[in-house]
Amino acid sequence: MEKSFFAAVADRRTFYGIGKESPAGDDRIRAVIEDAVKYTPSAFNSQSSRVVLLLGRQHDRLWDIVMEALRKVVPAENFTSTEEKVNSFKSGYGTVLYFEDKTIIESLQQQFALYKDNFPVWAQQSNGMLQYVIWTALEIEGLGASLQHYNELIEIDVKSELGIPQNWKLIAQMPFGKPTAAPGDKQCQPIQERVKVFK
Amino acid sequence: MEKSFFAAVADRRTFYGIGKESPAGDDRIRAVIEDAVKYTPSAFNSQSSRVVLLLGRQHDRLWDIVMEALRKVVPAENFTSTEEKVNSFKSGYGTVLYFEDKTIIESLQQQFALYKDNFPVWAQQSNGMLQYVIWTALEIEGLGASLQHYNELIEIDVKSELGIPQNWKLIAQMPFGKPTAAPGDKQCQPIQERVKVFK
Repeated sequence: MEKSFFAAVADRRTFYGIGKESPAGDDRIRAVIEDAVKYTPSAFNSQSSRVVLLLGRQHDRLWDIVMEALRKVVPAENFTSTEEKVNSFKSGYGTVLYFEDKTIIESLQQQFALYKDNFPVWAQQSNGMLQYVIWTALEIEGLGASLQHYNELIEIDVKSELGIPQNWKLIAQMPFGKPTAAPGDKQCQPIQERVKVFK
Repeated sequence: MEKSFFAAVADRRTFYGIGKESPAGDDRIRAVIEDAVKYTPSAFNSQSSRVVLLLGRQHDRLWDIVMEALRKVVPAENFTSTEEKVNSFKSGYGTVLYFEDKTIIESLQQQFALYKDNFPVWAQQSNGMLQYVIWTALEIEGLGASLQHYNELIEIDVKSELGIPQNWKLIAQMPFGKPTAAPGDKQCQPIQERVKVFK
């Protein structure tokens, strides 16, 4: 629980193999998510990001919705690999859904017309920060996670089933669970091509 | 140095009062930035984010460029407060510039046409994650930082002076230095309006 920031940053990975157990209780999972939402910064302190935590049958139902949506668009002869992938997410313990509250972004655009085009971009950056904090926090709690983007395919059905406000725009899905397989190797570009220092 | 992840998340704040000293050496600042760039995730492992660390006279020069650019667009009678703000950033020890390499994003758009519209959005999310990791890392090293967005005003001049590749798009500026003033109070929305749980 007292893992250092730098170790947590270096260790965080994408876990595709996840199971239906959790080393952390539901209250603890909720608490780390709530703290992440509370402490992650946003431009103009807009706090426009929203999170939905799905556990138990609601987690299962989400991935059923994804499966049904994909079955309509993926050719039947290719569906086996799609099915395996969706089932691997459904095999997890829960899913975090990320949203942005469009009402807040539009209100800022009206109040500060000069930055009109920037608010949606800053909201995406802030939502990314939040995804990162929750991802890393879940891993510290013993849970492996990955980040998925079935947004347009499932947004209407998910919002309708859960009664999510229409002004919340779906950004990402993060299935998580106790790791059942180690993450794969990760290729890193040479750092000198990505960081420059001038003094 | 061994601050826990959760404490670092809870403590990270925006610092506007910063000075020209650093509790951390330049090599250490560079190392935490390089690690952040290395370990922060990106969609399809695109690694499209780029960082430029400005120290010493290059940091000062950046804020001179910002001042000159603003002087052209801000009415003279309002310039005093603008000047104070820019000078408060220039008072810091260094600045981190954040970019996205457009060539990588365009290449992914060509390779995966189905996700064409998503790659620029995912790049913004990943850049936000990176901003967050560096911001928090700098604070652990005893440095206060804030996030600024003078992008369009300064991009051409900054890239020309530093010889930054034209395909790097400027996303944000993070001035930092030893804190000279405590951060202000922060208003938080009720968490139950931002997080929902279904099980």
